[in-house]
Amino acid sequence: MKTITVKSLKGSYKICVGRGLLAGAGARLSAMFPAGSRIMIVSQKNLAPYLKTISASLAKKGFKVHAHMLPDGEVAKSGSELFRLCHALLAQGFERKGGIVAVGGGVVSDLAGFAASVYLRGIRYVNVATTLLAQVDSAIGGKTAIDLKDGKNLMGSFWPPALVISDADVLRSLPQRELSASLGEVVKYGVISDPALFRFLEKNNKKILRRDAATIEKIVFACSQIKAAVVSRDEFETKGERAILNYGHTFAHGIEGASGYKGLVHGEAVAIGMMMAAQLAADLGICSPELPWRQMKLLVAMKLPVSVKKFNLKADAILKAMMKDKKKDQGALRFVLPRRIGKVTLEKNIPLPRVRKILCLAGAK
Amino acid sequence: MKTITVKSLKGSYKICVGRGLLAGAGARLSAMFPAGSRIMIVSQKNLAPYLKTISASLAKKGFKVHAHMLPDGEVAKSGSELFRLCHALLAQGFERKGGIVAVGGGVVSDLAGFAASVYLRGIRYVNVATTLLAQVDSAIGGKTAIDLKDGKNLMGSFWPPALVISDADVLRSLPQRELSASLGEVVKYGVISDPALFRFLEKNNKKILRRDAATIEKIVFACSQIKAAVVSRDEFETKGERAILNYGHTFAHGIEGASGYKGLVHGEAVAIGMMMAAQLAADLGICSPELPWRQMKLLVAMKLPVSVKKFNLKADAILKAMMKDKKKDQGALRFVLPRRIGKVTLEKNIPLPRVRKILCLAGAK
Repeated sequence: MKTITVKSLKGSYKICVGRGLLAGAGARLSAMFPAGSRIMIVSQKNLAPYLKTISASLAKKGFKVHAHMLPDGEVAKSGSELFRLCHALLAQGFERKGGIVAVGGGVVSDLAGFAASVYLRGIRYVNVATTLLAQVDSAIGGKTAIDLKDGKNLMGSFWPPALVISDADVLRSLPQRELSASLGEVVKYGVISDPALFRFLEKNNKKILRRDAATIEKIVFACSQIKAAVVSRDEFETKGERAILNYGHTFAHGIEGASGYKGLVHGEAVAIGMMMAAQLAADLGICSPELPWRQMKLLVAMKLPVSVKKFNLKADAILKAMMKDKKKDQGALRFVLPRRIGKVTLEKNIPLPRVRKILCLAGAK
Repeated sequence: MKTITVKSLKGSYKICVGRGLLAGAGARLSAMFPAGSRIMIVSQKNLAPYLKTISASLAKKGFKVHAHMLPDGEVAKSGSELFRLCHALLAQGFERKGGIVAVGGGVVSDLAGFAASVYLRGIRYVNVATTLLAQVDSAIGGKTAIDLKDGKNLMGSFWPPALVISDADVLRSLPQRELSASLGEVVKYGVISDPALFRFLEKNNKKILRRDAATIEKIVFACSQIKAAVVSRDEFETKGERAILNYGHTFAHGIEGASGYKGLVHGEAVAIGMMMAAQLAADLGICSPELPWRQMKLLVAMKLPVSVKKFNLKADAILKAMMKDKKKDQGALRFVLPRRIGKVTLEKNIPLPRVRKILCLAGAK
């Protein structure tokens, strides 16, 4: 097992990357919470086998363990689920010294982390990340959120987890589509800051899709290091630096909004969004025309979609949804665009017709 | 005008105490927010004259000013009002650079501050405190909250305001009952840390009830200094020190819960709660038997209730509501009890029958 430290204004926390870590959760938490504290495991039904291991490990160390199941999918990130969890914590007598263990992907940690940040004005939570996407991205950095009907992640908080546990063994049972979707974000890290990671992915894509454990652990560690470094330097997204993590995301949120979050998962939308961003960059002369092609080759090898053609979306609908995205700046859309593999910049004031053109190039109507 | 600085992990902020400050709000905010930012004034209908002054002052400095009215009373501190405000911010296109100006008492700043802390993961807010209670207490320290059906302030955040404006002129129009209720918290500051303030209140209670502006400004400044010092040292209520501000509040929350928050306002519940705490301290031999009497004399002079007799409450109902209070510690009630005027301590593990006896002494059935 390797650990990475993330700096936070509220105190640093550790990411543990390794294999077979779930059975050790109890020991790890007993060094952090007072003996006999209440722990609420927040998760989803399909993760039952992991819950059993974690729950037994916590109970063995004397914790009072409770469980709270969220519905599957993005619907769990709602105001009503936030209140349902807070009421459950209250009903079980959780005090400020209690904690939440979020077992799942980004949806679970977003909702559970948000509840942790506001229940009794804040209790601690631990992220046990069970998807590759969560391990390399959403479990790290303390962003929590729920969706409003007008868009994703419009309410939430910056509330750092007390610990992140990323067990590569867990990823062996990931469905193919989910694995691929997560690899979209992995490719993102290569493009935004790590040419060596990008080349590693180009060389090892078959091994990765075969779920070779050592290869995947290596990827998780490399991506976690990048994410940890970025959020340590810009915890509250105020210095511009954290914005680079949004490469592909302005477009992705537009695609997700226009599709009503149906038909494609977040990582797929990000893959398409990265293609749009790369094409926009090439169109503006910011990067070489070769970059979008090289990125596309890798994304296709990872079995990811690279256009919206088959989703039957209108360019205007995507644009409208993009304008609702909260990562606007005084009314103008901002884009993270690649200069070369390993280097991106933040670009403002890009004319909307130019953006629209890129959407149409990528298969929007 | 005098200013007091409050230290916060997120950066310090200022409290401005003086007279005729509302018309200067625009100038003050223009030094803090980017030119042309959107500002949402969150307030209540009965405060219309102040809103007009503040709104004009902001518009004059080029801000885009919007207004959002909350219902009167504690009902404004609900989940539905939280979402209604966030939706209003979204509908008006508020971005992270926009801000909220909460004009009102604790209810307004609790709800508006909570919305500010979670809308787009946090925007800034300014408290313009229009009640004495808000000026000396709730506007300072960054505690925000909503109520759940099981109790008050069960969800919320620590989210420091960017500025607090306390205009003593505004207090001249306070209804008698509200003025008295606020004086309960003022007496609290004397008991917990300032014998000179306590004596000043004993000597000047008639002037205060007459709303002598200079006297009231003096009180606001003295109390704000105490509150600012305490929260600067213990922002997140983790060091025990901030707990002293809860003198009378464990009982008060029990009284409010048992009464369904009807028939008495928070400051009145705090006055009765302080009497219960002082009697409990005397009963335990922690303070002299003279202390509760001296405190009672001052509270009565301030026209505050000192028992629950006329509210027809059951001791068991109060106890039950106290047990739901979030300021518990591993299941045990904690009490802030006076040792002498100006000095309190935190006491745990007080037997419930002893607490029940005090409730009955104070008129519970």
